[in-house]
Amino acid sequence: MKAIVNVALKQGVLDDQGKATHHALDTLGFKEIVKDVRIGKQIILELNSDNEKDAKTEVKNMCEKLLANTVIEDYSIEIIG
Amino acid sequence: MKAIVNVALKQGVLDDQGKATHHALDTLGFKEIVKDVRIGKQIILELNSDNEKDAKTEVKNMCEKLLANTVIEDYSIEIIG
Repeated sequence: MKAIVNVALKQGVLDDQGKATHHALDTLGFKEIVKDVRIGKQIILELNSDNEKDAKTEVKNMCEKLLANTVIEDYSIEIIG
Repeated sequence: MKAIVNVALKQGVLDDQGKATHHALDTLGFKEIVKDVRIGKQIILELNSDNEKDAKTEVKNMCEKLLANTVIEDYSIEIIG
């Protein structure tokens, strides 16, 4: 079983990596098309589990303890059977 | 229009960030459930475009020029209308 966790900065939190990338894209000629850039992490976990509900609970624990800084980040979990 | 770009290391390329996260999860008590961890970037682009095909071509150019290191990384693009 696999879990895909997407971790992104909460709205309103300054995304300096996104700003820097946006600036670089502007200088590369994409100024007209790019309005905003935000960058997050995608964590792919291979799991020893065959129960989707249990797996989701465990991954939520991992997010709360380590994978996301829940003060400034949101996370989403997708379990792939 | 929005584009979601997922950038991940190619299979076979050592993912030291993933290894370190895996080790940390082990020490936090998730040893039994986690078999492997790989970490990538998720880039969310707000675009000035109303043509999905053109948008995808532009975002592919952005990936090739800046967003992905195509020697060691793969990328996928999802356009959201």
